[in-house]
Amino acid sequence: MFEIKPKTFHKILVGVDDAPDARAAFAYAVGKAKRDGSELGIVSIHETNTVNVFQALDKDYVHTSRQDLEKRIDEYVQAAIDYGIDPKKITAIVDEGDRPAERICNHVIPEFQPDLLIVGSISKPGNRKVVGSQASYMTKHAGTSVFVIRTEEIRDYQ
Amino acid sequence: MFEIKPKTFHKILVGVDDAPDARAAFAYAVGKAKRDGSELGIVSIHETNTVNVFQALDKDYVHTSRQDLEKRIDEYVQAAIDYGIDPKKITAIVDEGDRPAERICNHVIPEFQPDLLIVGSISKPGNRKVVGSQASYMTKHAGTSVFVIRTEEIRDYQ
Repeated sequence: MFEIKPKTFHKILVGVDDAPDARAAFAYAVGKAKRDGSELGIVSIHETNTVNVFQALDKDYVHTSRQDLEKRIDEYVQAAIDYGIDPKKITAIVDEGDRPAERICNHVIPEFQPDLLIVGSISKPGNRKVVGSQASYMTKHAGTSVFVIRTEEIRDYQ
Repeated sequence: MFEIKPKTFHKILVGVDDAPDARAAFAYAVGKAKRDGSELGIVSIHETNTVNVFQALDKDYVHTSRQDLEKRIDEYVQAAIDYGIDPKKITAIVDEGDRPAERICNHVIPEFQPDLLIVGSISKPGNRKVVGSQASYMTKHAGTSVFVIRTEEIRDYQ
Protein backbone atom coordinates (compact mmCIF):
# COMPACT_ATOMS: atom_id res chain seq x y z
CA MET A 1 0.00 0.00 0.00
CA PHE A 2 0.95 3.63 -0.02
CA GLU A 3 1.79 5.94 2.82
CA ILE A 4 -0.65 8.69 3.73
CA LYS A 5 1.02 11.97 4.58
CA PRO A 6 -1.48 14.83 4.37
CA LYS A 7 0.18 17.92 2.91
CA THR A 8 0.48 20.87 5.25
CA PHE A 9 0.50 24.42 4.04
CA HIS A 10 3.05 26.90 5.26
CA LYS A 11 1.76 30.13 3.83
CA ILE A 12 -1.95 30.73 3.44
CA LEU A 13 -3.43 33.69 1.60
CA VAL A 14 -7.09 34.50 2.20
CA GLY A 15 -9.10 36.96 0.15
CA VAL A 16 -11.60 39.07 2.06
CA ASP A 17 -14.30 41.61 1.33
CA ASP A 18 -17.67 42.50 2.84
CA ALA A 19 -19.64 39.49 1.65
CA PRO A 20 -20.59 36.59 3.96
CA ASP A 21 -18.61 34.22 1.75
CA ALA A 22 -15.44 36.09 2.66
CA ARG A 23 -16.23 35.66 6.33
CA ALA A 24 -16.50 31.90 5.87
CA ALA A 25 -13.21 31.81 3.93
CA PHE A 26 -11.51 33.95 6.56
CA ALA A 27 -12.77 31.81 9.45
CA TYR A 28 -11.53 28.67 7.73
CA ALA A 29 -8.14 30.20 6.91
CA VAL A 30 -7.59 31.37 10.46
CA GLY A 31 -8.55 27.97 11.90
CA LYS A 32 -6.20 26.24 9.50
CA ALA A 33 -3.32 28.67 10.06
CA LYS A 34 -3.64 28.20 13.82
CA ARG A 35 -3.72 24.41 13.54
CA ASP A 36 -0.78 24.20 11.13
CA GLY A 37 1.24 27.13 12.49
CA SER A 38 1.15 28.67 9.02
CA GLU A 39 1.88 32.23 8.00
CA LEU A 40 -1.32 34.05 7.10
CA GLY A 41 -1.76 36.73 4.45
CA ILE A 42 -5.06 38.61 4.46
CA VAL A 43 -5.69 40.41 1.20
CA SER A 44 -8.37 42.83 0.12
CA ILE A 45 -8.48 44.50 -3.26
CA HIS A 46 -9.83 47.99 -3.61
CA GLU A 47 -11.98 47.56 -6.68
CA THR A 48 -11.36 50.54 -8.87
CA ASN A 49 -13.93 49.41 -11.43
CA THR A 50 -16.87 49.81 -9.07
CA VAL A 51 -16.20 53.51 -8.83
CA ASN A 52 -18.39 55.49 -11.23
CA VAL A 53 -17.14 58.48 -13.19
CA PHE A 54 -18.45 61.07 -10.70
CA GLN A 55 -16.92 59.23 -7.79
CA ALA A 56 -13.66 58.90 -9.71
CA LEU A 57 -13.55 62.66 -10.18
CA ASP A 58 -14.14 63.16 -6.48
CA LYS A 59 -10.78 62.35 -4.91
CA ASP A 60 -12.26 62.30 -1.40
CA TYR A 61 -14.61 59.49 -2.31
CA VAL A 62 -11.91 57.15 -3.54
CA HIS A 63 -9.66 58.07 -0.67
CA THR A 64 -12.33 57.31 1.94
CA SER A 65 -13.22 54.04 0.31
CA ARG A 66 -9.66 52.79 0.39
CA GLN A 67 -9.34 54.02 3.96
CA ASP A 68 -12.44 52.02 4.87
CA LEU A 69 -10.85 48.98 3.32
CA GLU A 70 -7.67 49.47 5.33
CA LYS A 71 -9.71 49.87 8.50
CA ARG A 72 -11.59 46.66 7.71
CA ILE A 73 -8.37 44.75 7.07
CA ASP A 74 -7.18 45.88 10.49
CA GLU A 75 -10.34 44.36 11.97
CA TYR A 76 -9.60 41.07 10.24
CA VAL A 77 -6.01 41.13 11.52
CA GLN A 78 -7.26 41.82 15.05
CA ALA A 79 -9.79 38.96 14.79
CA ALA A 80 -6.99 36.60 13.72
CA ILE A 81 -4.83 37.71 16.65
CA ASP A 82 -7.77 37.28 19.06
CA TYR A 83 -8.23 33.77 17.68
CA GLY A 84 -4.64 32.95 18.56
CA ILE A 85 -2.51 33.63 15.49
CA ASP A 86 0.93 35.03 16.23
CA PRO A 87 0.87 38.68 15.02
CA LYS A 88 4.36 38.19 13.55
CA LYS A 89 2.89 35.56 11.23
CA ILE A 90 0.18 37.85 9.83
CA THR A 91 0.58 40.01 6.73
CA ALA A 92 -2.18 42.46 5.79
CA ILE A 93 -2.27 43.34 2.11
CA VAL A 94 -4.40 46.10 0.62
CA ASP A 95 -4.03 46.42 -3.10
CA GLU A 96 -6.12 47.87 -5.89
CA GLY A 97 -7.14 47.11 -9.42
CA ASP A 98 -10.18 46.94 -11.64
CA ARG A 99 -10.22 43.13 -11.67
CA PRO A 100 -9.58 41.83 -8.14
CA ALA A 101 -9.13 38.18 -9.14
CA GLU A 102 -6.51 39.02 -11.74
CA ARG A 103 -4.77 41.38 -9.36
CA ILE A 104 -4.53 38.62 -6.76
CA CYS A 105 -3.20 36.03 -9.22
CA ASN A 106 -0.81 38.23 -11.15
CA HIS A 107 0.44 40.60 -8.51
CA VAL A 108 -0.31 39.58 -4.91
CA ILE A 109 0.47 35.86 -5.25
CA PRO A 110 3.83 36.26 -7.06
CA GLU A 111 4.83 38.70 -4.31
CA PHE A 112 3.50 36.89 -1.20
CA GLN A 113 4.11 33.39 -2.59
CA PRO A 114 1.49 31.42 -0.66
CA ASP A 115 1.15 27.66 -1.11
CA LEU A 116 -2.60 27.89 -0.52
CA LEU A 117 -5.21 30.46 -1.52
CA ILE A 118 -8.55 30.40 0.29
CA VAL A 119 -11.49 32.30 -1.16
CA GLY A 120 -15.23 32.33 -0.66
CA SER A 121 -18.03 32.06 -3.15
CA ILE A 122 -21.73 32.66 -2.67
CA SER A 123 -24.32 30.42 -4.26
CA LYS A 124 -26.91 32.74 -5.71
CA PRO A 125 -30.56 31.75 -5.98
CA GLY A 126 -31.31 30.71 -9.53
CA ASN A 127 -27.68 29.99 -10.24
CA ARG A 128 -26.78 27.99 -7.21
CA LYS A 129 -24.64 25.36 -8.85
CA VAL A 130 -22.09 27.53 -10.59
CA VAL A 131 -19.21 29.10 -8.73
CA GLY A 132 -18.62 32.85 -9.11
CA SER A 133 -16.40 34.08 -11.91
CA GLN A 134 -13.86 35.57 -9.48
CA ALA A 135 -13.37 32.31 -7.56
CA SER A 136 -13.32 30.33 -10.76
CA TYR A 137 -10.67 32.59 -12.32
CA MET A 138 -8.49 32.33 -9.24
CA THR A 139 -8.71 28.54 -9.12
CA LYS A 140 -7.48 28.38 -12.66
CA HIS A 141 -4.74 30.99 -12.48
CA ALA A 142 -3.48 31.12 -8.89
CA GLY A 143 -0.64 28.68 -9.61
CA THR A 144 -1.11 27.23 -6.13
CA SER A 145 -3.57 25.03 -4.25
CA VAL A 146 -6.95 26.74 -3.95
CA PHE A 147 -9.79 26.17 -1.53
CA VAL A 148 -13.11 27.68 -2.61
CA ILE A 149 -15.53 27.77 0.32
CA ARG A 150 -19.12 28.08 -0.76
CA THR A 151 -21.76 29.79 1.30
CA GLU A 152 -25.41 29.50 0.46
CA GLU A 153 -26.84 32.98 0.44
CA ILE A 154 -30.33 31.67 1.20
CA ARG A 155 -29.12 29.94 4.33
CA ASP A 156 -27.66 33.20 5.60
CA TYR A 157 -30.89 35.13 5.28
CA GLN A 158 -33.39 32.55 6.40
CA MET B 1 -15.77 42.39 15.98
CA PHE B 2 -17.02 39.23 14.46
CA GLU B 3 -16.95 35.70 15.73
CA ILE B 4 -14.66 33.15 14.06
CA LYS B 5 -16.25 29.75 13.65
CA PRO B 6 -14.38 27.72 11.01
CA LYS B 7 -16.81 25.69 8.93
CA THR B 8 -16.51 21.93 9.30
CA PHE B 9 -17.41 19.53 6.53
CA HIS B 10 -19.54 16.49 7.15
CA LYS B 11 -19.28 14.66 3.89
CA ILE B 12 -16.11 14.79 1.84
CA LEU B 13 -15.79 13.42 -1.67
CA VAL B 14 -12.29 12.84 -3.04
CA GLY B 15 -11.53 12.07 -6.68
CA VAL B 16 -8.74 9.57 -7.28
CA ASP B 17 -6.83 8.12 -10.21
CA ASP B 18 -3.28 6.97 -10.83
CA ALA B 19 -1.59 10.35 -10.93
CA PRO B 20 0.49 11.73 -8.04
CA ASP B 21 -1.93 14.65 -7.74
CA ALA B 22 -4.70 12.23 -6.77
CA ARG B 23 -2.48 10.75 -4.06
CA ALA B 24 -1.99 14.22 -2.56
CA ALA B 25 -5.74 14.93 -2.72
CA PHE B 26 -6.51 11.56 -1.17
CA ALA B 27 -4.02 12.00 1.66
CA TYR B 28 -5.45 15.40 2.46
CA ALA B 29 -9.05 14.15 2.35
CA VAL B 30 -8.30 11.24 4.67
CA GLY B 31 -6.48 13.47 7.16
CA LYS B 32 -9.38 15.92 7.15
CA ALA B 33 -12.06 13.24 7.42
CA LYS B 34 -10.27 11.71 10.40
CA ARG B 35 -9.88 15.07 12.12
CA ASP B 36 -13.48 16.17 11.54
CA GLY B 37 -15.12 12.74 11.83
CA SER B 38 -16.57 13.26 8.35
CA GLU B 39 -18.02 10.70 6.01
CA LEU B 40 -15.64 9.99 3.13
CA GLY B 41 -16.56 9.17 -0.44
CA ILE B 42 -13.75 7.96 -2.70
CA VAL B 43 -14.65 8.22 -6.37
CA SER B 44 -12.89 7.05 -9.48
CA ILE B 45 -14.30 7.41 -12.97
CA HIS B 46 -13.59 4.81 -15.59
CA GLU B 47 -12.75 7.03 -18.53
CA THR B 48 -14.46 5.60 -21.52
CA ASN B 49 -13.04 8.27 -23.82
CA THR B 50 -9.43 7.16 -23.37
CA VAL B 51 -10.23 3.82 -24.90
CA ASN B 52 -9.28 3.71 -28.57
CA VAL B 53 -11.42 2.12 -31.22
CA PHE B 54 -9.55 -1.21 -31.19
CA GLN B 55 -9.76 -1.42 -27.41
CA ALA B 56 -13.45 -0.52 -27.54
CA LEU B 57 -14.08 -3.43 -29.88
CA ASP B 58 -12.24 -5.76 -27.53
CA LYS B 59 -14.70 -6.25 -24.66
CA ASP B 60 -12.06 -7.95 -22.50
CA TYR B 61 -9.88 -4.84 -22.55
CA VAL B 62 -12.59 -2.54 -21.21
CA HIS B 63 -13.67 -5.12 -18.68
CA THR B 64 -10.17 -5.60 -17.30
CA SER B 65 -9.62 -1.88 -17.11
CA ARG B 66 -12.74 -1.32 -15.02
CA GLN B 67 -11.80 -4.28 -12.83
CA ASP B 68 -8.37 -2.73 -12.25
CA LEU B 69 -10.10 0.45 -11.23
CA GLU B 70 -12.27 -1.37 -8.72
CA LYS B 71 -9.23 -3.12 -7.31
CA ARG B 72 -7.45 0.21 -6.96
CA ILE B 73 -10.42 1.79 -5.21
CA ASP B 74 -10.31 -1.07 -2.73
CA GLU B 75 -6.68 -0.21 -2.04
CA TYR B 76 -7.65 3.39 -1.35
CA VAL B 77 -10.43 2.25 0.98
CA GLN B 78 -8.00 0.00 2.82
CA ALA B 79 -5.49 2.82 3.13
CA ALA B 80 -8.18 5.05 4.64
CA ILE B 81 -9.16 2.34 7.12
CA ASP B 82 -5.50 1.79 8.05
CA TYR B 83 -5.21 5.53 8.66
CA GLY B 84 -8.07 5.34 11.14
CA ILE B 85 -11.27 6.13 9.27
CA ASP B 86 -14.30 4.13 10.43
CA PRO B 87 -15.12 1.68 7.59
CA LYS B 88 -18.82 2.48 8.07
CA LYS B 89 -18.08 6.07 7.11
CA ILE B 90 -16.39 5.18 3.81
CA THR B 91 -18.19 4.94 0.47
CA ALA B 92 -16.30 3.69 -2.59
CA ILE B 93 -17.74 4.88 -5.89
CA VAL B 94 -16.68 3.56 -9.28
CA ASP B 95 -18.52 5.16 -12.14
CA GLU B 96 -17.85 5.65 -15.82
CA GLY B 97 -18.21 8.26 -18.48
CA ASP B 98 -16.30 9.91 -21.28
CA ARG B 99 -15.83 13.16 -19.35
CA PRO B 100 -14.88 12.34 -15.73
CA ALA B 101 -15.26 15.88 -14.40
CA GLU B 102 -18.76 16.21 -15.81
CA ARG B 103 -19.70 12.78 -14.54
CA ILE B 104 -18.59 13.73 -11.02
CA CYS B 105 -20.47 17.05 -11.05
CA ASN B 106 -23.66 15.89 -12.73
CA HIS B 107 -24.04 12.37 -11.46
CA VAL B 108 -21.84 11.46 -8.50
CA ILE B 109 -22.28 14.69 -6.51
CA PRO B 110 -26.10 14.88 -6.79
CA GLU B 111 -26.20 11.28 -5.59
CA PHE B 112 -23.59 11.36 -2.81
CA GLN B 113 -24.29 14.99 -1.80
CA PRO B 114 -20.92 15.93 -0.30
CA ASP B 115 -20.36 19.39 1.16
CA LEU B 116 -16.71 19.33 0.06
CA LEU B 117 -15.00 17.99 -3.04
CA ILE B 118 -11.23 17.48 -2.94
CA VAL B 119 -9.34 16.97 -6.17
CA GLY B 120 -5.73 17.10 -7.26
CA SER B 121 -4.11 18.96 -10.09
CA ILE B 122 -0.62 18.61 -11.48
CA SER B 123 1.38 21.63 -12.56
CA LYS B 124 2.90 20.74 -15.88
CA PRO B 125 6.25 22.16 -16.99
CA GLY B 126 5.66 24.99 -19.45
CA ASN B 127 2.15 25.54 -18.18
CA ARG B 128 2.76 25.55 -14.47
CA LYS B 129 0.48 28.38 -13.53
CA VAL B 130 -2.78 27.14 -14.99
CA VAL B 131 -4.86 24.49 -13.25
CA GLY B 132 -5.98 21.46 -15.29
CA SER B 133 -9.24 21.64 -17.18
CA GLN B 134 -10.79 18.81 -15.13
CA ALA B 135 -10.11 20.51 -11.79
CA SER B 136 -11.18 23.85 -13.16
CA TYR B 137 -14.47 22.43 -14.50
CA MET B 138 -15.22 20.80 -11.16
CA THR B 139 -14.54 23.97 -9.18
CA LYS B 140 -17.04 25.81 -11.32
CA HIS B 141 -19.77 23.19 -11.48
CA ALA B 142 -19.53 21.06 -8.32
CA GLY B 143 -22.13 23.16 -6.51
CA THR B 144 -20.18 22.64 -3.28
CA SER B 145 -16.95 23.81 -1.66
CA VAL B 146 -13.94 22.61 -3.63
CA PHE B 147 -10.33 22.15 -2.59
CA VAL B 148 -7.89 21.81 -5.49
CA ILE B 149 -4.55 20.49 -4.25
CA ARG B 150 -1.72 21.19 -6.62
CA THR B 151 1.28 18.98 -6.98
CA GLU B 152 4.32 20.11 -8.88
CA GLU B 153 5.27 17.39 -11.30
CA ILE B 154 8.87 18.56 -11.38
CA ARG B 155 9.19 18.30 -7.63
CA ASP B 156 7.98 14.70 -7.74
CA TYR B 157 10.66 13.57 -10.12
CA GLN B 158 13.63 15.51 -8.82
